[in-house]
Order: sequence, then structure tokens, then C-alpha cells
Amino acid sequence: MGKSLRSVDIIAGKRDGETLSREQIASFIKEYASGVIPDYQASAWAMAVFLNGMTAEETGCLTRAMIDSGEVMDLSGLSGPFVDKHSTGGVGDKISLILAPLAAACGLKVPMMSGRALGHTGGTLDKLDAIPGYSTALSQERFRAALEEVGYAMTGQSERVVPADRKLYALRDVTATVESIPLITASILSKKFAEGSEALVMDVKCGEGAFMKTLKDARSLAESLVRTGKSLGRPVIAVLTDMSEPLGRMMGNWLEVEESIDCLKGEGPEDIMEITLRLTSWMLVAGGLEKDVAGAEERCRKALADGSAMEKFRKNVEFQGGSLKEMDDMTGRARARCSREVKAGETGFITAIDAFAAGRAGVVLGVGRDTAADPVEPLAGIEFLKKTGQKVSAGECVMRLWAEEEGRLQQAEDLLDGSVVIRDAAPEARSSLILEEITTA
Amino acid sequence: MGKSLRSVDIIAGKRDGETLSREQIASFIKEYASGVIPDYQASAWAMAVFLNGMTAEETGCLTRAMIDSGEVMDLSGLSGPFVDKHSTGGVGDKISLILAPLAAACGLKVPMMSGRALGHTGGTLDKLDAIPGYSTALSQERFRAALEEVGYAMTGQSERVVPADRKLYALRDVTATVESIPLITASILSKKFAEGSEALVMDVKCGEGAFMKTLKDARSLAESLVRTGKSLGRPVIAVLTDMSEPLGRMMGNWLEVEESIDCLKGEGPEDIMEITLRLTSWMLVAGGLEKDVAGAEERCRKALADGSAMEKFRKNVEFQGGSLKEMDDMTGRARARCSREVKAGETGFITAIDAFAAGRAGVVLGVGRDTAADPVEPLAGIEFLKKTGQKVSAGECVMRLWAEEEGRLQQAEDLLDGSVVIRDAAPEARSSLILEEITTA
Repeated sequence: MGKSLRSVDIIAGKRDGETLSREQIASFIKEYASGVIPDYQASAWAMAVFLNGMTAEETGCLTRAMIDSGEVMDLSGLSGPFVDKHSTGGVGDKISLILAPLAAACGLKVPMMSGRALGHTGGTLDKLDAIPGYSTALSQERFRAALEEVGYAMTGQSERVVPADRKLYALRDVTATVESIPLITASILSKKFAEGSEALVMDVKCGEGAFMKTLKDARSLAESLVRTGKSLGRPVIAVLTDMSEPLGRMMGNWLEVEESIDCLKGEGPEDIMEITLRLTSWMLVAGGLEKDVAGAEERCRKALADGSAMEKFRKNVEFQGGSLKEMDDMTGRARARCSREVKAGETGFITAIDAFAAGRAGVVLGVGRDTAADPVEPLAGIEFLKKTGQKVSAGECVMRLWAEEEGRLQQAEDLLDGSVVIRDAAPEARSSLILEEITTA
Repeated sequence: MGKSLRSVDIIAGKRDGETLSREQIASFIKEYASGVIPDYQASAWAMAVFLNGMTAEETGCLTRAMIDSGEVMDLSGLSGPFVDKHSTGGVGDKISLILAPLAAACGLKVPMMSGRALGHTGGTLDKLDAIPGYSTALSQERFRAALEEVGYAMTGQSERVVPADRKLYALRDVTATVESIPLITASILSKKFAEGSEALVMDVKCGEGAFMKTLKDARSLAESLVRTGKSLGRPVIAVLTDMSEPLGRMMGNWLEVEESIDCLKGEGPEDIMEITLRLTSWMLVAGGLEKDVAGAEERCRKALADGSAMEKFRKNVEFQGGSLKEMDDMTGRARARCSREVKAGETGFITAIDAFAAGRAGVVLGVGRDTAADPVEPLAGIEFLKKTGQKVSAGECVMRLWAEEEGRLQQAEDLLDGSVVIRDAAPEARSSLILEEITTA
């Protein structure tokens, strides 16, 4: 098209609602990543993108430019299919810990780069770190070896992968330009595709405990992800799932490892299992191992029942340096020093448990963090003894809080005040947590 | 209102189309001026303002916050009325040089802070600098004394006046956020009101040689200026004037001083005199010295006819250090070393002279500059021997170019190629250059 590559013209173009060319987007991101374009130009551009949007093609070019800003995981010579899952972030969301070994047991290769807890949502890496010895810092060689020998690998993101996203995300965070569908899309997909995935299943969480509060917003993001994946020639399937109540019975780093083990034994809570099975099934379909979700789900259930998923999990723990013995010894026993019971204030049926409040309480207890530099406590957390739909009597214990310091328990309890809603009438039977599935652009 | 004063919340508020509170705007500008808020937040905010606009009240608060960021000219103890004029920038626009002494001769005090040439438009300070000895760097004491003794003062803007605007303008220039009506309004009015003006007459230029190309855009800016002045309790009157052809017969720093002297003698070109008389008349009305423009214009014509306007001009030149003798000796004689005639390519009537092309040619000749640090040539310029409506024969001289170096003449001539349009039929008689007058919000 021969459009101007001057940074100020690229900003002006987006400001005026024009469609930027592939060359313009590539040049802007490349120069921003290398420091030629200063932050103040990138933030003005991000605000123009926020307010004027991007076409699917522009978002694809942006994703590609982000990937090209850094190193890309080299999976050549390994046999696939390579399929990953990503979630927009939930409370009590330990699905990756179950899904990765399950998918590997079914024949996929899962090259999973995960993140850490931030704000009210948890992080897979912090959970894995609760296993004594487990290392989430794998070299490229070890990552490849894990994929080859175990079928899946769990690692943190190297600073050399998509540095443009790292830099732009930090800038967006302080310039009110985070909640932009094209910018979120490019941020997620660039990271996932740079790690080597050929296809991706997205868990787009929706509700008070999620980044996307409404079905409309969640659907917009899901559609953008699917469309942009298509424009890059890598299939993305988006599953919208309900995130109004914490997932499962445990929230906490070690506590969620324990619950994941229960799930792999086939003894997991229904809500987690429903979502895990559906997401894993779509991964098998996306990877071409199954034709439809029904067949895929059957294969998953078999891998749980025959112990092969659990075997993958234990092999991964060993491969990544974790001590199976210590892990087994801790199970059912390792808890933070202080605990407190939260009791029902009245008799009736639980109609809601506020996931956002639980997530915030988790930060106070030490499960999560508000800034990337804060430490987390491996054994802190919340056990949800009752969930929505269950009957409780006044004075009955509904949650148990765990923390390393007494003072944190009180702060957390204050944050949880009013988070469990009890009514006289039983709520309608809970329908599926799967709200929508978007498989084609 | 108690709205959040966190910078990122203020950016998000404007991003979401909210009306910012007085406190939010004051806090944002104060912290930006002091360096607490970084450029990258200010540019994201400016882009949000660009795309979502501001109410008249917000623009007023922004103007006030800019004024408060620095020093304000202290005119206490002096007798007014203090009224100034400002132009959005034109080609061949020497009106300030004529209007200021004329207004002073009619009894106003004109505290005029002017700017320098930038891009294709000229600057009053560069023109005054062409008078040997003339100083446009006045201390506050000399500025006050000039107002008291002469009735007007011409000075550059101190770095201590509206530093927030200085900083924000430089940022807007590189982030594609210049052409925003509320940001332009606050930038102009903060500077003018900080110099002590009680009322302001705005010359909003409109056409190819102006910042505002269309009547619609010029009107939007004019209305915003008038409305915002009202919200600050200082009357602003906006006159929209045509800027499609260079004003007068001279463009150049010294050349325009000469032409201004002609105008003060009552021998100036019709186009300049029409606009100068109208703007000065509105200043007299705004200052309360006359009830209507008709009476004011009569008073102005008298001050030209009786020589009192010219006397003010000469008194000001002396007061500000200029040599009247050298000025008189130069008149009609001082020209740059090299010159070239531009000839009509065909016989017919001139139907247009492109003001923008003339302005760009002026930069090449040395009249103006592209960046603030470039020097200008006092004697370079263009003499327009023929103007729109006049008949010319092929080969007849239509312009004379002046420059200190031969090479610049050719470059300028290339830029001027096609700028004079000649047609067989005479154009319609030119109507008034005054397009609209906006006196109340």
C-alpha cells in the first residue's frame, strides 16, 4: 500500500480510524521493542487502538509482529500434534494441572508456558512451585526433552520470548489501555504461538470473578481470538465458561495441587471436571486426534480411569525435579500454620459465592499478589466446604481459611464478609458451566 | 464530586467519555507539569481527549490549570483596558504590527506576547527582529513600562509562563494529538490570559494557508474559544477570516515591517486593512471603549489619518531599543542579496494564489523555519506584484523572490510551480475576507 512508516503518521492513521497496513504495524512494533519509538508514542497509539479498534487482519499482523520481536520455541524434529490451552484467568482455576497430563495421556504434546498469580487470579507456576523441588524454569533443551519423554512441559515465559508484548503490556497497565480486545488478543496469541503451539483452546472466563464480566464482552474476545488465529493459519477454539463462583473446593497453591491430584484420580469436583473434560476434548479435536467432542471426551475419561493421566502427571513432576515422595507425604497434611473457620450466619441454601471477593481474600492470605515482585505463600488458601446449591445451618462451617500469620486471617474474613449469599429457597439447579463454544471464525 | 485523582483513573475516565472534574484536570496538569505524571500517561490522555472531546467547562478547567502551572504577568497598578488579539497563523499576516499601535492610539493597552515563525506561517517576533536594535525580550518591568508609556508592548513568551502548555504542546506534536479543539483552545487561551489580557479578539484563519482548512473546523475552534473565554469570565470574540491567498503584497520579515509602515500611513493593501480594522474595532468593543464595530472603525480610521497610530508604532520601536534612523534608511531599500522574478506562463486573469505553497517557499527562502532552532533571514521573502483578480500577460512578472543564496531561489521557484492559477475569464469580484464573527457563546 506504501503507507507512511513514520511513527506519528501510524498513530494519526489509527486515530483517524484507518486500517493500518501490515508494514506499518510491523514497523511500529519492531521500533517500539527496540526503543526507537518511545513509550509516549506507543501509549498514544494504544489509546487510539483502544478507542478505534482493529480489523481481524490488523490484529493478526500485530500478533505476528509481537511474535517476531523475540525468540520462538524451536520444536523442529519433535513429533506433535502440539496443542495448548490458555485461560483468561480465574479463581480456583487449576485446570492446566489436570488438563496437560490428561491431554498428553491422550496423545497430544502440550508445550505450556504459564504465568504467575496477579491480582485476584491465581497462577499455574505458583501452584507448581508448591511441589518441593519442582522447577518451572526449563532450558529449551529440557523443554523439548519433557515434551518428547513426558508429552507435556510446564515452564515460565522467557524474557526473550515476545519482548514487545512484555514492554507494551507494562505500558498499557499504567495508561488505561488494558481492556482492548485487539490488544488482548495479540498479547495472548503471540505468547502462545511463540511457544510452538499449532492450535490453541481458549478458556474465556466470564462473570464477576473474571476479567470479562459480561457474556457480550467475553464473546467479543472469544470471537477475536478465533478470527485472529484463523488469519494466522493456527486454529483457535474458544470455550466461554462461567466464573461467578470459585472453581472446585480449594483455592491456594499447594491446596490446588492436592485437588488436581484428586481430579486425576477421578475424584474431583464436578465443576472442575466438566470444564477440564470439555477443554481437553477440544484440544484433541483441534490436534486432529478426534473428530468430535463426544469421542474425545470418551477417550479422556478412559485416560483418567486407567491411571494413564495420573502417570503422566507423576512423570512430569519427576522430570521437572519435583519430589514424588515429599509430594505424597504432604498430601492431605501440609497446611499453613494458622487457620480459621468462616461460619454461616443463617440457615438456608447457598445461592452464590463471590469469586472476586474470594480472589481478593486469597491475595491477603498469601495465595496471590498485587505486584509481580510480591512473594506468595505455598500453603495458604481457602477450602470451600459448601458450594452453591447446598443447604447450611446457622453456625455451620462454610469455608476454612489458611495463612502463615494470624493477622491475615482477620483481613481475609473482612473481605469475605457478605460473599456467601444464603436464601430460604433453594436456587435453581445449576446448569452447565460451559456457556458457549466458538469454533469457527 | 470526589472522583479519583489517580492518573490512570483520569485517563480511563476520559477514555470512557466521562466528564472530568475540575479537581481531576487540575491535578493531572499540575502533576504533569511537575514531572510526577510521565509523558506516556499524558499522551494516552491527550489521545483520549482528542477522540472523546471535552465539554466547555472541562476546557475552561484545563485552561485555568495551564495558567496556574506558571507565572502570570502582573499588570496591577496599571490602567487598562487590557485587550489583545491572537491569530491562528497565516501567510503574510503582519496584522499585529499594525493593530497593536492602532489599538493603543485608540486608548487600549495591548500586552502582546507573540510567537516565532514555524512551518509555513510567519511569526511576529521574527518580523520585529528585522528592525535593527529592536528587542523582543522584555523584563516584566520594561513590559509594564511599555504598556504605561506607549500603550503596547511586544514580547516573546517567557519559559516561566504556562510551562504545562509548553511541555504538553511538544508532546502533542509527536503523538498526533495536535488537532484537538479543546487542547488548542486551552493552549491559546492559557497563554493569552497569563499575559494579563482581560479580553481577547481571535483571528481564526480559514483556508488552504491556515491550520483550519474548512469553515466547519474554523467555526468549531472559534466557538470553543468564545465559550471557554466566557466560562473563565474573560470575553473572547472570534473573527473567521479567509486565508486562501497570502495577505498583502509582502511576505518576509523585514518586507512585512515595511508593508506595516505603509498600512499605518494609510497606504496599505485593501485585504490587510479590512481585517486589521475589523479586528481592532472588535478590540475596542471588547475593551468597552466603543459600543459597536461601526463606531469603533471610525475611531480607528481617524487614528490612522491623524498619524497617531504611526506615532505609537515609532514610540514602541524606540522604547524597545529599535533604531528609527536605521529603520527609515532601510525602508524601500533593504533587500536580500539575490532575487528572481517569477513570470506568468500565460495571459489571463489570476484566479488564485496558493497561500500554503507561498508559505512553504518562504521557509526555503529563509523567512520561516521548520524547527524552532533554525535561524531566519531578515531580508528574504516574496513580493506579490499581482494578486487574485488582476489581469496578467504571458511573461509578465507576478512575484519577486529574495534570498541570501542563489540556490534557495530555485528551490522556492520549484515549490511555487502551479501556485498562481491563471484563467481566461475574470474571477468573481472578491467579497469580504471576513467570513464570520462569533461574539457570544
